[in-house]
Amino acid sequence: MKGDGEVGGAPEANGKAERLPDLSNTPRTALHRHRERARTDRDDLYAVLDAGLICHLGVIADGVPRVLPTGYGRLGDTLYLHGSSANATFMAGGGQEVCVTVTHLDGLVCARSVFTHSMNYRSAMIFGVARLITEADERMEALRVITEHLAPGQWSYARQPTKKELAATSVLALPLTEASVKIRAGDPSDEPEDCATDRWAGVVPVTVRFGEPEPDAALRPGIAVPEHIRHRG
Amino acid sequence: MKGDGEVGGAPEANGKAERLPDLSNTPRTALHRHRERARTDRDDLYAVLDAGLICHLGVIADGVPRVLPTGYGRLGDTLYLHGSSANATFMAGGGQEVCVTVTHLDGLVCARSVFTHSMNYRSAMIFGVARLITEADERMEALRVITEHLAPGQWSYARQPTKKELAATSVLALPLTEASVKIRAGDPSDEPEDCATDRWAGVVPVTVRFGEPEPDAALRPGIAVPEHIRHRG
Repeated sequence: MKGDGEVGGAPEANGKAERLPDLSNTPRTALHRHRERARTDRDDLYAVLDAGLICHLGVIADGVPRVLPTGYGRLGDTLYLHGSSANATFMAGGGQEVCVTVTHLDGLVCARSVFTHSMNYRSAMIFGVARLITEADERMEALRVITEHLAPGQWSYARQPTKKELAATSVLALPLTEASVKIRAGDPSDEPEDCATDRWAGVVPVTVRFGEPEPDAALRPGIAVPEHIRHRG
Repeated sequence: MKGDGEVGGAPEANGKAERLPDLSNTPRTALHRHRERARTDRDDLYAVLDAGLICHLGVIADGVPRVLPTGYGRLGDTLYLHGSSANATFMAGGGQEVCVTVTHLDGLVCARSVFTHSMNYRSAMIFGVARLITEADERMEALRVITEHLAPGQWSYARQPTKKELAATSVLALPLTEASVKIRAGDPSDEPEDCATDRWAGVVPVTVRFGEPEPDAALRPGIAVPEHIRHRG
């Protein structure tokens, strides 16, 4: 079906700046089990982030963890997170050590034993101190990156923000310095004695797809879906 | 296409026990902006959780937040989370105040102005003290709930766990007492002056779909996909 494409990375011109080195283990990013799932190539980190649409931001507020889903975008080795200036959880992240996780579920791994059931997935967990962007030009640039990540082409197509709108929007910047990337793919990992049984095993693929763009009820007549939106869909 | 169904709730017989009252605001669940997105009906909480496949568990470990994607299941007013006994982040959640978030992305809201860009989504954020399940029968029951949530019918179809396998698996239980449910649906919320322009606006739907089950390379010949897996796919 036209316009029912699989979700992929935003065609953003990223990585212009000199990039950081590949990922090295730290006490909180090292895997103790399933080390074969770990990825240390920085391109794997970029791929997981660029293919995602939302992240989950973890902060500490009032002494307890909070996990907030939100939009984001990447420019080189900086992740920009979008939030409302009125959102206490989001604002708590400014100046604080945070954790941002992006997860793609790729399949249900149906094994011959209950224990070996699993999921195929790609995930990135990023640690670092988030910085609340206060400088106007940098915030505009970050909002451009976030908007273009969500819907490439919309930044120049849509009306630019007013000062009042900008004041209601906050952006956190997080350096992609310390991250853990994990990927599980492929078949179940059943024991040989289980594989000898007559039980079925395999993977049920899970995909995220864009559907046909649905026009706003208030759309004036005669306005076609622009190419960049149709392309996204 | 057969076997390409949209992801929906697990057909789990839930809510047998007397259920808790509807959700009431607490300082950390009350919305300060977009109050129209808040849901306090407990059925909305159940619907968001039952339609999801993974959650993001937020804990504090070594003084900083960590956000871990993991599988889960619901039985009545208890959420069970699945993890490895060797995963420090997961194990840190036991006895600790945690935050569990389940998010469904339903659409990209492409508006006429940059500021009104948004996403359609359903999310649940649950707060509470997680309890590490140590009692054998309760853990087996929790693992049944989690397995059946992922792939209904697999608990009785697959081989049951051994004691060694059980020891490698941990389960956290979280009461569904304090939660914030948010839903955004529908068209962009552009200002009237923006609606009067010739820009297109609308929603690009996003759906999660199951594909055709893919047999394990080690599958013995002649074993057909069981009905409950074909149905899931």
